[in-house]
Amino acid sequence: MRIAEGVEWAIHLCAVLGVVSEGHTLSAGRLAEFHDLPPDYLAKHLQSLSRAGIVTASRGVSGGYRLAKRPRSITLLDITLAIEGPEPAFRCTEIRQQGPCAATAAVCKQRCAIAQAFMVAETQWRKALAAVTVADMMRTAASESFDKSRRRIFRDWLNDAVK
Amino acid sequence: MRIAEGVEWAIHLCAVLGVVSEGHTLSAGRLAEFHDLPPDYLAKHLQSLSRAGIVTASRGVSGGYRLAKRPRSITLLDITLAIEGPEPAFRCTEIRQQGPCAATAAVCKQRCAIAQAFMVAETQWRKALAAVTVADMMRTAASESFDKSRRRIFRDWLNDAVK
Repeated sequence: MRIAEGVEWAIHLCAVLGVVSEGHTLSAGRLAEFHDLPPDYLAKHLQSLSRAGIVTASRGVSGGYRLAKRPRSITLLDITLAIEGPEPAFRCTEIRQQGPCAATAAVCKQRCAIAQAFMVAETQWRKALAAVTVADMMRTAASESFDKSRRRIFRDWLNDAVK
Repeated sequence: MRIAEGVEWAIHLCAVLGVVSEGHTLSAGRLAEFHDLPPDYLAKHLQSLSRAGIVTASRGVSGGYRLAKRPRSITLLDITLAIEGPEPAFRCTEIRQQGPCAATAAVCKQRCAIAQAFMVAETQWRKALAAVTVADMMRTAASESFDKSRRRIFRDWLNDAVK
């Protein structure tokens, strides 16, 4: 079980989009450039974010991407489900209904105890990711990941990149 | 992100192995038969369970598999990690160190806030699965999944299958 790399990419880039001011956008190309990501793969993930209502895409000369909501209203869970899809990690295939001692469909109206246990775990996992927002990531990026000179480099890059 | 089907198989079959009495075993073939599973794929998972010290395999005429520990000492987390491997679902690839505004390695001595958030979620997930044991699954299987007649079918199958 591995979470797609695209989740890491999407969260980082949502944090970048969070500082783009009202009325401006960043193109898919500039977003790919920011962390040196493969543009084709990234485009697919940007489409997923768009479909999930996390970013909005506009066309034309000044077209590009921006967040569709406030950074504090987008959680890490929203982004993860947008990229990975909404299904839980454990998908019960009801093997208890197979074989010489198969439980009948009637008996199996209740969810299998194994699936139940994984559902409890999934709920905990989702709750933890739903408690962290893009705004939190922006704060950490600003305070921890960049020293003063990097912050200037970032501002210069952003000024050049926004449309 | 999807948990391998082998996890579901392995948990179900550990619950079956839990009722095999001292000194007896079940062969890989009979285990595959129990839930009508593909023997080749199952063999690979049984090897993983054996490597993780969850089952023991013995060779020879009366050879086969049995649990290496008491059912209450084997958790759903143990089995999941045996099949899926020990790595967490989110694997940070440090993309913050790539691109025109890359954070320096020195700045990145602290784990990225995104990776931290996923680590918190993973810990919650693992804690939930570590709280449920094969003994719990055996109790539920006995009480819920089988009516009286099925319980007899199971006992007959087991008497025929154990070595």
